[in-house]
Amino acid sequence: MTDKEIQKRIDTLASLKTVQMYNNDFLLTWDKQEEEIRAVLTVADILRGMRDANLSPRIFDSGLALAIFRDKSTRTRFSFLSAANLLGLTAQDLDETKTQIAHGETVRETANMISFLTEVIGIRDDMYLGYGHSYMKEVSEAVREGHREGVLPRIPTLVNLQCDLDHPTQALSDLLHLIHHFGSLEALKGKKVAMTWAYSPSYGKPLSVPQGVIGLMSRFGMEIRLAYPEGYSLIPEIEELAESNSRAAGGLFSRSHSMAEAFSGADIVYPKSWAPYEVMQRRTGLLKAGDSKGLDDLEAECLQLNKRYLDWECNEQLMKQTDNALYLHCLPADISEVSCERGEVSASVFERFRLDTYRQAGYKPYIIAAMMFLSKVENPASVLSGILKEKVPRVADSG
Amino acid sequence: MTDKEIQKRIDTLASLKTVQMYNNDFLLTWDKQEEEIRAVLTVADILRGMRDANLSPRIFDSGLALAIFRDKSTRTRFSFLSAANLLGLTAQDLDETKTQIAHGETVRETANMISFLTEVIGIRDDMYLGYGHSYMKEVSEAVREGHREGVLPRIPTLVNLQCDLDHPTQALSDLLHLIHHFGSLEALKGKKVAMTWAYSPSYGKPLSVPQGVIGLMSRFGMEIRLAYPEGYSLIPEIEELAESNSRAAGGLFSRSHSMAEAFSGADIVYPKSWAPYEVMQRRTGLLKAGDSKGLDDLEAECLQLNKRYLDWECNEQLMKQTDNALYLHCLPADISEVSCERGEVSASVFERFRLDTYRQAGYKPYIIAAMMFLSKVENPASVLSGILKEKVPRVADSG
Amino acid sequence: MTDKEIQKRIDTLASLKTVQMYNNDFLLTWDKQEEEIRAVLTVADILRGMRDANLSPRIFDSGLALAIFRDKSTRTRFSFLSAANLLGLTAQDLDETKTQIAHGETVRETANMISFLTEVIGIRDDMYLGYGHSYMKEVSEAVREGHREGVLPRIPTLVNLQCDLDHPTQALSDLLHLIHHFGSLEALKGKKVAMTWAYSPSYGKPLSVPQGVIGLMSRFGMEIRLAYPEGYSLIPEIEELAESNSRAAGGLFSRSHSMAEAFSGADIVYPKSWAPYEVMQRRTGLLKAGDSKGLDDLEAECLQLNKRYLDWECNEQLMKQTDNALYLHCLPADISEVSCERGEVSASVFERFRLDTYRQAGYKPYIIAAMMFLSKVENPASVLSGILKEKVPRVADSG
Repeated sequence: MTDKEIQKRIDTLASLKTVQMYNNDFLLTWDKQEEEIRAVLTVADILRGMRDANLSPRIFDSGLALAIFRDKSTRTRFSFLSAANLLGLTAQDLDETKTQIAHGETVRETANMISFLTEVIGIRDDMYLGYGHSYMKEVSEAVREGHREGVLPRIPTLVNLQCDLDHPTQALSDLLHLIHHFGSLEALKGKKVAMTWAYSPSYGKPLSVPQGVIGLMSRFGMEIRLAYPEGYSLIPEIEELAESNSRAAGGLFSRSHSMAEAFSGADIVYPKSWAPYEVMQRRTGLLKAGDSKGLDDLEAECLQLNKRYLDWECNEQLMKQTDNALYLHCLPADISEVSCERGEVSASVFERFRLDTYRQAGYKPYIIAAMMFLSKVENPASVLSGILKEKVPRVADSG
Repeated sequence: MTDKEIQKRIDTLASLKTVQMYNNDFLLTWDKQEEEIRAVLTVADILRGMRDANLSPRIFDSGLALAIFRDKSTRTRFSFLSAANLLGLTAQDLDETKTQIAHGETVRETANMISFLTEVIGIRDDMYLGYGHSYMKEVSEAVREGHREGVLPRIPTLVNLQCDLDHPTQALSDLLHLIHHFGSLEALKGKKVAMTWAYSPSYGKPLSVPQGVIGLMSRFGMEIRLAYPEGYSLIPEIEELAESNSRAAGGLFSRSHSMAEAFSGADIVYPKSWAPYEVMQRRTGLLKAGDSKGLDDLEAECLQLNKRYLDWECNEQLMKQTDNALYLHCLPADISEVSCERGEVSASVFERFRLDTYRQAGYKPYIIAAMMFLSKVENPASVLSGILKEKVPRVADSG
Repeated sequence: MTDKEIQKRIDTLASLKTVQMYNNDFLLTWDKQEEEIRAVLTVADILRGMRDANLSPRIFDSGLALAIFRDKSTRTRFSFLSAANLLGLTAQDLDETKTQIAHGETVRETANMISFLTEVIGIRDDMYLGYGHSYMKEVSEAVREGHREGVLPRIPTLVNLQCDLDHPTQALSDLLHLIHHFGSLEALKGKKVAMTWAYSPSYGKPLSVPQGVIGLMSRFGMEIRLAYPEGYSLIPEIEELAESNSRAAGGLFSRSHSMAEAFSGADIVYPKSWAPYEVMQRRTGLLKAGDSKGLDDLEAECLQLNKRYLDWECNEQLMKQTDNALYLHCLPADISEVSCERGEVSASVFERFRLDTYRQAGYKPYIIAAMMFLSKVENPASVLSGILKEKVPRVADSG
């Protein structure tokens, strides 16, 4: 991106109302105004453009970015770390096994204890329905109390790195990928997106990716086609939200139990496994009760259930029915005959789109950095203009 | 803090003799001159004031701060990390399970191997009487030999993050909290501090917090009231040290076996569980002998013993006997009916002082940063004046 | 080092052809031209000289250095971290237990997912013959594909932190230590180096240190004397390479089964245990087959075998036969009567050279930093000249 192209995006940003994002968390895309969503996408593009032009968009001389992962993670962990590093923050994992959290400390106390010099807290807590989002709210309230009461000098703002409801850094990366692929956010209007379940020989995958995708994409006039086998619904309120978003944005929303129907004529397909909603609910109950026998039985039952839908595989035959669709996946995908016998996608389809899925993932560090930036800087456009003028190189002699 | 207020503290610092702190460790408060203690408190306030005014007190462009934790830790780990980050150092844990330390490397060798570019080493080793402090001396001697012999370009200075004898970063944070609460160090003269044991359904808590508190507070003319059940004494030499400190400072020192007596008319109370001295000694012996059966028996015996003192709980009734005392705790506290059935403090007392205990903890990153600063900078006052003049913002556009 | 001495080395660097190192990996010393080897040694000296003179050679304002350790490590881990930190990169371990790598992600995918903002990847993978180097090539090809296809904005370059074939950061540190000890690279011509096996009560030590040493040292006209008990040969191709290097450089190369013969009249001795080549091959096969019983049997057999060569110990008697030789070790050494009953070296010999071995290790952070520097900067001499002129202090007020 040339300086002029970057400046053009800064001008766009200046026209958007982002004042509510300052000192605020980013937990759910549907809590954010459309201008705020556009601001995240715009800042992500600016930060990427600057870095590619060897300009350092560092705004912190010191400060911490704290990551709490309650589920395994490679890409999100590195995306968070990369985003923090780009802005000048030092990322630190809170590894619960090394700390005293398990020893009776309350969330309220720990949240403050680790936040004295913390700017941003990223949390991934996506395992149990009804928990992840609540936990994030609890942490957010704790550090806000701490700030109000003079414990914390600044408000540590939260970034949701995946909860039980939404996966906003993923959905926004997906959206930015589509914007770059189709040319603009406006160009997405009317595009048909098949967000479908797909078979996987695994158990307990969270619902937050498909929920995040339909909750966000439905706001821009696309045609959302949600498809899954009976019993594999998402959280009903989020399906309803997507439906009403679609209506409001002049788009369409449909639900079916047929992958083929969803794929027919689609511009974009996002076939991805998730656990049945009802299984996730029972699982949460069993976990609370500490019933490990019950959990084992449920897993066996669920894997057996999945097998009835082995044909929910994104393969060449189905892809032929689309309108030359772009394949999306949040990775890692279960690839038939590669990572498992039968999976979400056939090897040939995946291989054709492999590098596209890498590019899709590549937006995430910038999306996270944009969320951080907008929550920590009151005048984002003017700060970015300043960076563009100062021209501090990120690497000396970049070739 | 305004620039003027910061400058005033820098002037105070300039009047204190700190030359002995340069290139030196901070292991025990009682090894330090009173002027040196005052310097740590002053620099901590200055660094905090600067950060709150969005001035970056970064003095390193690169360099490592190494943390060796031989016990679990949340708050101290983050405090150390935060302090290092504020000054421009990258903190790195030495995780003994990932390294070859367990494979026969001597302390001497390892200490040098990880210190080639290291500025500061923080160590927590508080589990066994007679060990933690010795280990720190061993590491210190090893890196000093390395420096002397041309292995290490600079002397990595040590910060004691808790040993078997003292917990200086805690005691100094506690003291700074009192200074801010009561107005000044001078205002503490004559204040009555009840440092008392309290019941907890746990085993093996180190003695270093109460030892650190009485060893430090006794130097400023306060009235120290140490109270614990029979058999729960601290290391005798440290009790004696506190007593002689008190005498020298024109304060008072008393010992009793009654919580009520200690609380009566107190200005400050610090009720906190610790293991009986004699149990800690036997425990160390059993650990050396690798006698796990003996250790289990000792734990059971000790928990049983503790139960005789269930009434050593800081509750509203006891608090009424004080002179509207400030409650202190190093956290996490064992709170009755919250974190355990019966604990160190009743829920209502703790809740009333909860945010105060957070504020108390909030001084620790600055105390650690001050210790680092004074050990790495030969002319601290002039460097701080320079920072105040240069006005490098910590965050661009801080609102 | 004075500015003038540093500038002299920058002038030397400017005369060396390093253009092929830019955007390239450092995997094996024998893949590098002699001028490139000299460039690494020269840049390492310059970076060390600058740091010692309190000049910060930081060239990155942000960016990641990723470390993948598939074997335990203290010194190499800290050396990598220190090198990254010195240049302004944030080092991050990829801890495979915390990530999804074990869950079916391919190397190709993961390598890209963690590299969006990554400048350097350090890998240690030295456990199985035929694996470590291949894995590094695989990662390198994956990130190069990612760069070519627009996934990664810059090429993350690799540094081999030890593989099954070579240990280039070790061998180059060893060489730089010799250069400083004997005065210059030219002064090493004709020096007799005894690279010998030594007894250790351990099993499965990699062959890469002796291979790296003979593969590198043989290029500078030294007399290489490789000695080991029958059955303990290195990878035959690498022995041959060293032999042909020696011939080309006007040096000598000999192989024997006698430690005494190798030591006789030697200037440098490097006695170090490693596993028998044939055992390493069988071990790799058993590991592939998942045969844990077979592995246990092999370990027992190998330890028994080792015991036949208890007298391969570097002791005073043997040292007397040398020409006042310098003792080298990559550490940790198995020291007789210190870390084990009988080991690689007697206590008195080791103690005499203990600080020398620390100094030897102390070059590694700078060797790694030099590899990073030369792979990330197109015009290294001009960038280093710029740093020398700008004089950014690493520490404010360094005394």
